[in-house]
Amino acid sequence: MCAVLRAFGWQDPSDGDKQLRKVEDGKEEEVKGMKKFVKRDFPVEDVRRFLEPGPIVLVSSAWKGERNMMTMGWHMIMGEDPSLVGCFIWDQNHSRELVRKSKECVINVPTVDIATKVVKVGNSSGREIDKFAEFGFTALPGKHVKAPLIGECFANFECKLIDSSLINKYSLFVFEVVKAHVAQVPKFPKTIHYRGSGLFMLSGPTTNRYRKLFKPEML
Amino acid sequence: MCAVLRAFGWQDPSDGDKQLRKVEDGKEEEVKGMKKFVKRDFPVEDVRRFLEPGPIVLVSSAWKGERNMMTMGWHMIMGEDPSLVGCFIWDQNHSRELVRKSKECVINVPTVDIATKVVKVGNSSGREIDKFAEFGFTALPGKHVKAPLIGECFANFECKLIDSSLINKYSLFVFEVVKAHVAQVPKFPKTIHYRGSGLFMLSGPTTNRYRKLFKPEML
Repeated sequence: MCAVLRAFGWQDPSDGDKQLRKVEDGKEEEVKGMKKFVKRDFPVEDVRRFLEPGPIVLVSSAWKGERNMMTMGWHMIMGEDPSLVGCFIWDQNHSRELVRKSKECVINVPTVDIATKVVKVGNSSGREIDKFAEFGFTALPGKHVKAPLIGECFANFECKLIDSSLINKYSLFVFEVVKAHVAQVPKFPKTIHYRGSGLFMLSGPTTNRYRKLFKPEML
Repeated sequence: MCAVLRAFGWQDPSDGDKQLRKVEDGKEEEVKGMKKFVKRDFPVEDVRRFLEPGPIVLVSSAWKGERNMMTMGWHMIMGEDPSLVGCFIWDQNHSRELVRKSKECVINVPTVDIATKVVKVGNSSGREIDKFAEFGFTALPGKHVKAPLIGECFANFECKLIDSSLINKYSLFVFEVVKAHVAQVPKFPKTIHYRGSGLFMLSGPTTNRYRKLFKPEML
């Protein structure tokens, strides 16, 4: 690895890197299967570690025998205890009614190696296809919600809708994260962050070099 | 530049990089002055380009002769036309009352080269110090708001508070961006994205390699 990469905190190539290079070579379609992650329970009050940096996520839902997923870029942490996340789900999204009626969803965090599929999920509508089957995603059962977890995503956050009063005015769904499943490796996944106009910012290195500057109560 | 960096879309070192290396060498305090950016008007409906990826921002405000700034990591795009941003401003933040009373703020986007000062802003309270003077920031006049723009930040978004009804329940301020000032160089600044626990994710490269996959109406 070159010195400049090390200086910026890049780690040695991981599985994620290998899959990214396949994408860069234009051979993404040749990847036979998407990677599935081995996950562990994760403290719900700490999901900001993965959501606060602003990644594109996949929101999965289920209602009366129907299941769906959608891409979402507009979300924010709104509390840690309870663990609250605000999500913008547009009235043109087929998922909106599934989430509103079931009062549940799963927020799934994809990594860059499946960015092509994430875009295809955003291009398509659950009115016409089952996106799990169409794109080869694995639906896994949740512990506290009936919405399916997406096996090929690095992290899955089971959510309960706790406030529906802002849906009509702002398309804003306020969820409480009630269960979090996070892969142990890599520690910080390479996530994709949307800029509009078809541009993605890819997550760079995570650094602790400023941690010593923080007052403990400000962490 | 090494081939791996090029493969990941990194550009040649810019001023930002040079300042980052100074930080890495532990010599950040030796930098005499912070860089100021030359800015142009930017379409307010496109500010998602800089906010949607989830950077830490500095929120500046003014009320009755007092001015302040605070760090903020919990925010989301809530609309493009009008350009809406939801912001979590905690009731322990001194800025909260300045913003609530003036019904205005500026959202400023800092880059990694001033990360040390961003942490110091977060560590301190406007009840005790003038953070502009203490940390050497330049307060510039806005066009539509009395809150000051921070000259050393890459982008400044002048905001009007359009909905204060969610402040008491969720600490949620809904702002409309009424004027945007953005530096022309670099096109995509190296921003800092908080993960909690004193950890920052640094923004990586921006790529257009997935753009051709998007349906035009999904951009």
